[in-house]
Parts: sequence; structure tokens; C-alpha cells
Amino acid sequence: MTGSALGLPVAVPSTALFTDRYELTMLQAALRSGAARRHSVFEVFTRRLPEGRRYGVVGGIGRVLDAVENFRFDADVLGFLSRENVVDRATLDWLADFRFTGDIHGYPEGEVYFPGSPILQVEGTFGEAVLLETLILSILNHDSAIAAAASRMAVAAGDRPLIEMGARRTHELAAVAAARAAYVGGFSTTSDLAAGFRYGIPTVGTSAHAFTLLHDTERDAFTAQVDALGAGTTLLVDTYDLTEAVHTAVEIAGPELGAVRIDSGDLLLLAHRVRQQLDALGAKNTKIVVTSDLDEYAIASLAAAPVDAYGVGTSLVTGSGHPTCSMVYKLVARARHDANGPDSPLVPVAKKSLGGKASIGGRKWAARRLDESGVAEAEVIGTGPVPDELADRQLLVPLVLGGEVVAREPLDAARTRHVQARAGLPLSATQLSRGEPVLPTEFV
Amino acid sequence: MTGSALGLPVAVPSTALFTDRYELTMLQAALRSGAARRHSVFEVFTRRLPEGRRYGVVGGIGRVLDAVENFRFDADVLGFLSRENVVDRATLDWLADFRFTGDIHGYPEGEVYFPGSPILQVEGTFGEAVLLETLILSILNHDSAIAAAASRMAVAAGDRPLIEMGARRTHELAAVAAARAAYVGGFSTTSDLAAGFRYGIPTVGTSAHAFTLLHDTERDAFTAQVDALGAGTTLLVDTYDLTEAVHTAVEIAGPELGAVRIDSGDLLLLAHRVRQQLDALGAKNTKIVVTSDLDEYAIASLAAAPVDAYGVGTSLVTGSGHPTCSMVYKLVARARHDANGPDSPLVPVAKKSLGGKASIGGRKWAARRLDESGVAEAEVIGTGPVPDELADRQLLVPLVLGGEVVAREPLDAARTRHVQARAGLPLSATQLSRGEPVLPTEFV
Repeated sequence: MTGSALGLPVAVPSTALFTDRYELTMLQAALRSGAARRHSVFEVFTRRLPEGRRYGVVGGIGRVLDAVENFRFDADVLGFLSRENVVDRATLDWLADFRFTGDIHGYPEGEVYFPGSPILQVEGTFGEAVLLETLILSILNHDSAIAAAASRMAVAAGDRPLIEMGARRTHELAAVAAARAAYVGGFSTTSDLAAGFRYGIPTVGTSAHAFTLLHDTERDAFTAQVDALGAGTTLLVDTYDLTEAVHTAVEIAGPELGAVRIDSGDLLLLAHRVRQQLDALGAKNTKIVVTSDLDEYAIASLAAAPVDAYGVGTSLVTGSGHPTCSMVYKLVARARHDANGPDSPLVPVAKKSLGGKASIGGRKWAARRLDESGVAEAEVIGTGPVPDELADRQLLVPLVLGGEVVAREPLDAARTRHVQARAGLPLSATQLSRGEPVLPTEFV
Repeated sequence: MTGSALGLPVAVPSTALFTDRYELTMLQAALRSGAARRHSVFEVFTRRLPEGRRYGVVGGIGRVLDAVENFRFDADVLGFLSRENVVDRATLDWLADFRFTGDIHGYPEGEVYFPGSPILQVEGTFGEAVLLETLILSILNHDSAIAAAASRMAVAAGDRPLIEMGARRTHELAAVAAARAAYVGGFSTTSDLAAGFRYGIPTVGTSAHAFTLLHDTERDAFTAQVDALGAGTTLLVDTYDLTEAVHTAVEIAGPELGAVRIDSGDLLLLAHRVRQQLDALGAKNTKIVVTSDLDEYAIASLAAAPVDAYGVGTSLVTGSGHPTCSMVYKLVARARHDANGPDSPLVPVAKKSLGGKASIGGRKWAARRLDESGVAEAEVIGTGPVPDELADRQLLVPLVLGGEVVAREPLDAARTRHVQARAGLPLSATQLSRGEPVLPTEFV
């Protein structure tokens, strides 16, 4: 499998090693005891949202589907496991034939979630389901953190486009996933070429201070850029004197100048000043792009400023203070016996509460109950039969059935779904201030 | 190039797309203006440490070397850039032949750094050096953040080993880099098999609550695990009743039981209680491993507890509150003319200060000045000749010369270097409390 076959900047011959060692040793022990064959249900959920957040955003489902499909143990991987004595021969033989043949249901990507929401349910034999813990959590914990931050920024930005520019602030491949999650959460474009290559997200770019400093004068730099890229380009105007730069920029590119970027200083003040200057120079359609450590609060504070687009980096790719979610992957039900099938009765299981780490056992359904006006009022989660009135508000959808992915979708579908899901929440969901989850979770 | 050829769980056919679009459009404009040929020096530095931190730790240098070596534009990549009109034909032709032929000097991996330290210097034509900005920053910003957190945790843990267990809390490939950086910073082992595969870091594992819950009784689960993995295994004892579990564990495994893991509750209290119980049962050599949202403060608070090893996840891989560094990649000097060589006189360049984003132009040297007792007292940075008394305290070493990597080293070398570098700092470096950088930076 080559990079281009997967459309990736990196080929992924296998995702099987994105796994904690204990998953394989548990497998070995369970194969030996026979319990590896027990039909099991694992659930991904989180006990809490990041402090002060009103809702979570499910990110990474599409990546989970790719990762599960590529979860195979090839000769290189098996050689490593053997050499390092990670597991015994019987387990290696079992892994050599491995492919996930179970079912995965989950919240679709872009959906919102709350504490206790059963975001993903992985069902199969213990042996096959236990192996996916780390990989699934890595993807969901990372991507959902970015998607949630992106969503808040999108709320703050309103109709103005958001540009993802954070690649340099996070691991080079996390950056690609971050650009993807940001797009789901409401960003429009990314600076990251790998994200454009892999996910078709529109890529954009401006210019760096280095380009201006490279040339003998700012005028030379602007001329070079406009010559090469046309008047529609975005010129960076804060390397030396802002007013002079804006003047030079319009002189060189004409009033058709696409945009100017301001990357430092008091953006609120400077945006007003630059807008006035551009207008006075006749460049009424020249846009203003601002960057410089923006987060959702800084974006909100610029709502009244004449800003046309925001470029966001650090704060986005670090989840705006919450770079990971606290999703866990817990066994919630399993068969009574080692010989059993998907239809065997299951025993709900849960760890005893100690220090707040309680879980609720059993395979769950989840629904979002609406009030009379159609606004969501509760996340309802249950293990028994679904009440009639919630039958058409079910949140879990089939993602993988019998090992086959059944829910591939374009990234835009997740992006649209997120806008709709957020719009269905009470208005206070979009307050940036700290608060409680906007919906209570009810277990029935 | 296959995954195993690079020893990676994922093959990296090219790192060239881990690049922001503007680097390529700047290249196009500079090729057109001729300035792309100007000899240039870019510098990686940070204006500040994360708030309250006493020192930074250079992580990721080894990964930078791999990434620069693999920075090539193959047909797939060029096809994408052409299809998306990222750059023009002349630029695509230039990129088709691209390989970095310049020099890179830098702080070696594991070294400590301070605000203004010239952590990396990339020198070559503007065209070749500008392209590496995002990739280099992604790696250094991520890996150094993890290495710094790891170092603080290692200080807090003293002689007790630290186990990296954070894969599930970060992007699946960021996790591999995080395990590597944690090892540099002082961790001993990782749970992440991919990190073992790629970097040879020793992997370890215990067991999850799921394994206990899978079986009909805790006794069945412990028996299965000991049967499969031997008495030296680590049993997780907090699924139901801790005291009962410890009793059962020793009954089944005997006093040779390797370790027990406690993953919830008041770890200080429980560690004491479990130690007493283990000793009373004759399992005096059975170790106690604690996990559960540990950070450097929690580790420090357990210093007096009978704990033998710490497993750390979330806090480590998110940089303990600082998931990225604020390293930037700035042009600091460039030739006067478009036709020039490495020996042409360079013009120091720097952006005008606006909102604190000032830089200091010029190619720099850096040295750590010691006091009479041999303890570091200042990070001295200059652009002129090196003072004689600092000649043998130079921090920058050659990493890449004429495009060839000259500084590959085993990961253990970086790990050892970090211990030595930290030991050379004033004692207050290892205080966990918030404070100023432990060395002042002097520009001469």
C-alpha cells in the first residue's frame, strides 16, 4: 500500500502497533483462559467535559474507520512482537490472521456529546475488541479536542472564515488530523498542504516576515510577490511600518489587492486603522486577515472590528486549553460463557467506584430529548428498551457491521452535521464563558 | 521505501507536504525575483519559556534529521501541487530536483535551553531553507514540550522509574514521538508498541479493568493472567475491593508476584496500605505501580509513599499544561545580492518590534557561562566573535553539513546528555514551583 493509494502523505502499512502492550498480553491471557472468545461490548465515553465547556464535539470517526480497516499484523510487526517476547507463539498465530469482524456503532462525526454519552460501542469477541482500545482513543481524544475548540472559534467568528494555521505548533501528523477536525468544527481552510492532499481541505497561504526581510526593501518584496502571485495575493504588512506598508502594497498591487495580513500589535486598533487607510486608497475590497495567537476570546473581541478572516494556530491545535478529551474505553457487557455468539445474553459489568472512576454497565442506547419548541433538553441514555417517544431521536448509528465499514461519508457531511447539531442545542451552548454542560445527562 | 525500511510503523515516502502553503508561494515569488538564491540564515528560538518553567529541553533533533533527509517532492506530491495550482511550472520543476544542500547547526538533543537560545540554525539559499519552516517547528515544538514535561516528572520521581502510558491521550503518531521525547526527558519505558518498534524504547504493560471484568471472578482473571504471563506479571488490583484483590493476587501468584497496580483512589493512602498488606503476606519484593492522572506534582506528593514506579499518561503527552513550545523560525541574516555563496557577507535582518515580536538579527553563537564552582550562571548569546573564555562552552554543534546528516546518535546519548545538562544548572532549576528561567540570557 503506497502513500498515494491511501491518499496519505505517509503510507500506513498497518495501524496495529498504535497499541499499548497490555492489550496484547491481555489477549494472550484471555486466549489461554478461553475468555477471549466471550462476546463483549466496549464503550467509549467521557465522565466529564473539559472544565467550563458546554458541549463536546465528536471528531475523528472517519479516521477511526480507516484505522480499524488497516489494523493488521504483518510480518514486520509479528517479527517485532516475537523478538521482544511481547506475546507467545499461540497469540502471534492468532494475530497473523487478525481482522476485526465485529460491529461498531457510534455518534456520527460532528455530532455533539455530553458526559456519559456512549460515543462509540465496539462489539465482538473480547480478543478482537480489546485490541482497538488505544488506537480508537488516540484518534477520538485528539480529534474531538480540536473539533471542540474549532467549534467555539467558529461560533465566535460568526460568518467570517477561519483559517487553520497551526501545523507548526503540533506534531506534523497530528497537524493533518487537526486540520481535518478543525474543518469539521467549522474552519474553512488550512495552511497545511498535507491536509489538503489527504482530505481535500482547501489550502491557503499568505507570506512570512522572512520574505520581506529577504529583499532589500519592502517594496521589492511586495513587487516580487505581486509579480509572481498576482494582485489577488495577501501581503503581510507588519514587518516594518504598518502604514507605510499598506500604502506601498496598494501602490504596487492596485486597489485589486486581495488582502493584507496583520500578525502583531493591537489587532482591534490596527484593523480599524488599516481599513480606513485601505478605503482611503480606494482598496475598498481588499480584505484584512488577522493572525497572532488568536483564540475564541480574541476572535470574539474582534467581532466589531473590520476583519475579514482569522488565521488561528496554537490555540486551535492545542484544543484551546484542553488538548485532549478524557474519553475512556470500557468493557460494559460480556457473555456469560466462553462459547457464545452475538445473540447470547450479556452480563453488564462495571468497575467499582473508587475515586470517581465509576462506569455504568450494559449496552446502551442514547437519544436527545427535545422540548416543545424543538430545542434539545436532555441527553438520555439507557440500557433497557428505548421509550417510544425517543425512538426517532436515537444518536448511535452503525459504523462497522461484521467488520465492514458501512458509514463512510465526505468530510463536508460531518461539517454540516455539526452546524445542525449545535443549532439544536439551547442558546447558552454558544456562550464562550465557562459553564456547565448545556444538556443534563439522564440515565434511564 | 517501506515502513520497515525506515523502522517506522508508517512509511514516510516524503515529509515535503508537512509544509504550510505560503512556504511554496514565497519560493515561487523569490525564484521569480531572483532572491531565492540569496544565502540565508534562519534561526529557531523562543521568546519565552512556558509560564513558570525554569528551563526548556531540546527534543526532536533526531527526528528533524530524519525529516530533512526525507524532504523530497515525488510525483504524487508534485501532481497535487500542480492540480491545486499551489505554484507555477517553474517552481514545480525546481521542487522536483529538491534536496536540502545547506548546513544545520543546533543545540544537541537533550540539551536545555532558555529564552533566546538559538536552538537551531538553518543555513542555505533562501529557497531551500524557507521550505523547512513548518516541518522543523512541528517537530521541535511538539517534542520539546513533551521532553520538558518528562524532565520535571523525572526530577519529581527521583530514582523511581517512570512509565510512559499516554498514547491514548494524543494523536496516534504524536504518541510515538511523545514516547521518544519522554525517554529523552528521563522516562524508562513506554506502553506504546509503535515506540518500541520505531525507537527501541523498552515496552511494558500491566492489565486493564476490562480483563478482570471479562472473567466471572477476579480470581479467574488473576489466575488466567498468572498462568499466561507468569508470577512476575503486574496485576491490577482496584477493580472491586482492593484488599481482597491483593490477598487473591498473592494467593494465586505467590510471593513472587511481580507487581500490583493501583489506578484510582487516594494513591498515597492506598500505597501505604497495600505495602503493609503485601509485606504481611510475605510478598516483600512485590512492587507497587501507581497510575491515575499523575503529573509532576502528584508524583512529588508520593515521594514518601512506598511506590516503586509511576505510570504517566495525559499530563505527559500534553506537556503538563504546555502542549507546545513557542519556537519560531526566523530569517536572521541573508546575503546582499542574489548571486552569492556561503562566504558572502551577510546582512543581519529582523522584524520591527510590534507587540513584543522582536527578533535579534545576525548569525549567532551561544555558550553557557559557568561560575567558579562550575555551575551554569548565564546563557550567553552573541553575533560577533566568541570571547576566548567561552570558546569551550559553545552550545551549537553541526547537525547537517552540505545536506548530509553528521550528527546521528543513539537515543540514549540524548537521554544521558539531558541528565548532565540539567545537573549543570543551579539547584533551583529542579524546583517544581513556578519561577523565572533559572539562567538569564545575555546578548553580547
